[in-house]
Amino acid sequence: MPELRRDPVTGEWVIVASERAKRPGDFADHSRADQPDEPENCPFCAGNESMTPPEIMAFRQPGSQRNGPGWWIRVVPNKYPALAIEGDLNKTGFGVYDWMNGVGAHEVIVETPEHGKQLPFLDTRQIEDILWAYRARYLDLKKDPRLKHILIFRNYGRVAGASLGHPHSQLVATPVVPVQVAAELAGAQRYQDYHDRCAYCDILRQEMNEGQRLVSENEHFIAFEPYAAKYPFETLILPRRHCPSFAAISAEEQTAFAAMLGDALRRIHLCLDDAPYNYNIHTAPCDRDDKDEFHWHLRVFPRLTIAAGFEMGTGVYINVTPPEVAAECLREVDLGASLPVPAELPVGSQDDPSASPDS
Amino acid sequence: MPELRRDPVTGEWVIVASERAKRPGDFADHSRADQPDEPENCPFCAGNESMTPPEIMAFRQPGSQRNGPGWWIRVVPNKYPALAIEGDLNKTGFGVYDWMNGVGAHEVIVETPEHGKQLPFLDTRQIEDILWAYRARYLDLKKDPRLKHILIFRNYGRVAGASLGHPHSQLVATPVVPVQVAAELAGAQRYQDYHDRCAYCDILRQEMNEGQRLVSENEHFIAFEPYAAKYPFETLILPRRHCPSFAAISAEEQTAFAAMLGDALRRIHLCLDDAPYNYNIHTAPCDRDDKDEFHWHLRVFPRLTIAAGFEMGTGVYINVTPPEVAAECLREVDLGASLPVPAELPVGSQDDPSASPDS
Repeated sequence: MPELRRDPVTGEWVIVASERAKRPGDFADHSRADQPDEPENCPFCAGNESMTPPEIMAFRQPGSQRNGPGWWIRVVPNKYPALAIEGDLNKTGFGVYDWMNGVGAHEVIVETPEHGKQLPFLDTRQIEDILWAYRARYLDLKKDPRLKHILIFRNYGRVAGASLGHPHSQLVATPVVPVQVAAELAGAQRYQDYHDRCAYCDILRQEMNEGQRLVSENEHFIAFEPYAAKYPFETLILPRRHCPSFAAISAEEQTAFAAMLGDALRRIHLCLDDAPYNYNIHTAPCDRDDKDEFHWHLRVFPRLTIAAGFEMGTGVYINVTPPEVAAECLREVDLGASLPVPAELPVGSQDDPSASPDS
Repeated sequence: MPELRRDPVTGEWVIVASERAKRPGDFADHSRADQPDEPENCPFCAGNESMTPPEIMAFRQPGSQRNGPGWWIRVVPNKYPALAIEGDLNKTGFGVYDWMNGVGAHEVIVETPEHGKQLPFLDTRQIEDILWAYRARYLDLKKDPRLKHILIFRNYGRVAGASLGHPHSQLVATPVVPVQVAAELAGAQRYQDYHDRCAYCDILRQEMNEGQRLVSENEHFIAFEPYAAKYPFETLILPRRHCPSFAAISAEEQTAFAAMLGDALRRIHLCLDDAPYNYNIHTAPCDRDDKDEFHWHLRVFPRLTIAAGFEMGTGVYINVTPPEVAAECLREVDLGASLPVPAELPVGSQDDPSASPDS
């Protein structure tokens, strides 16, 4: 069972993997080249469903069987979960230290049965279904009163922490509100208290007016380089409509979100020569996602530089590409040559995209 | 001139390098092997002093000339500084955004004239002089009222952000108190308010009593694995005496600090097969380093794992080596075979280690 331990000074929680503890010889050499990653050994490829734990949900062709092929999106528990879904928290103190059982959820959203097809180049309708899968898992896990926050994220490339090449996202639900989520929420609240307006709504207005950090826009979303971006080419996708929770997205907005996410990732891919990246969805904690105090969004972090002793000791990042320069580079990307070929989607994909998952 | 920009929600400051902006083609490929790093091209090797900006201070042999050989520790401005030492802050607002000039200091402490000799294997008296150089630079920069905090840190290995192989540390003085320093200080104050005791003094007592996370100890310091360590083999060196500022260290304590730092780094080096690491010194902000609210220390972060989308979105780290396991591994290291050969130190090295630098 993993543990959650709290730093008595900063209050930060850390997940400690007590089983399968890595000893000195167990760490990979980060300087090696990427290891071979073949579809026949890939647990996320169609036909290899038995290599994962039983599926939690899937978008499947009519008549196909659970844990067999015929799916176009499949969600499974992480085989090596950071947190365990069974058990009580058993909150305990040990002297100055706070402890609880590492209860939570850790799931993998397999984004396509095709091993070599990366998210930016999937059909927009497929990207939209990935987002519906995110939402379905969020809404299901939100019912569990032990879980306080749900982070949905994607690691792409070994340098960004991805250990498998097959396109996938992940979800981790924690029994605590993470320190960084709490800080962002508190900051939004502080701004709201002072100005009686939403900080992100103000940012949206200013970015639309100034335009120099804008990358792309559509009817429901804008993509821009944040004024105080920590990472070169960090990109924020912000909904125009103020809303605390990404799960409250409408069907029309979801279509626009998929289009904007695909657009931003294609620009980053083409501009930065297939750079590794992470993205994550910033959304309110489960029990506050109907409050009006937050404005959900998605952040993409290309991994072009290394956080070192200065960043680790201060939390101050050095961004070597001014956001205005990054925005200009991303705007200038020629998307024409790279537009994904519209794939024929399996029957039923869009009939009822917000329907409950089949689990 | 670099800029400091503030995130309007979280309040975090970011340094934006406005000159020499890196464009998409300028980023190194992190997956490549280490580049050749030869003494003849190394700006930090003895004889190559002209390859750095003029030295700020040095510990030198009597009669040797500034910016020539004859030094055993040399401090120079960083040739590519994150912050610039000249100029006014010119604090300005642009709509919702806060801005100031990137004023500060960024210095390199060259730890030895010998290219291939790494810090853990330097003579303890040489390590002590490195620490005296840290202190001398801290005390000098502290006089500048524009500077609010001074971080001293070391990056070792390319994965840990080091771009040059020659042994060196760095120092960055910022005109703001970094968010992470503020959070640690606030946490210490909160603990003090609640318990009327110092959190770190309590931690020290508990770690000494329990012993399971202890790595090493001497008369003035302990080295241990923090209970809620974020990184595998993260190691904290804590002075036994409660003191907010590392600059208030006594000569006797400095000797013990050098011994403890060398001991901890040798254990990490031998246990983890020369792993890359960062360390940084956590000390109170300049204008509060005589207040009683903090307890300075040094943290070493081996870089064995990659922070990915989950850590970046939550601030919650997953530590795959329980601190108790890491401590046991580090305690068991056989230091006997690796003890550094006592070097003959240049005359005058220890005569007055706390004397002012020669600048």
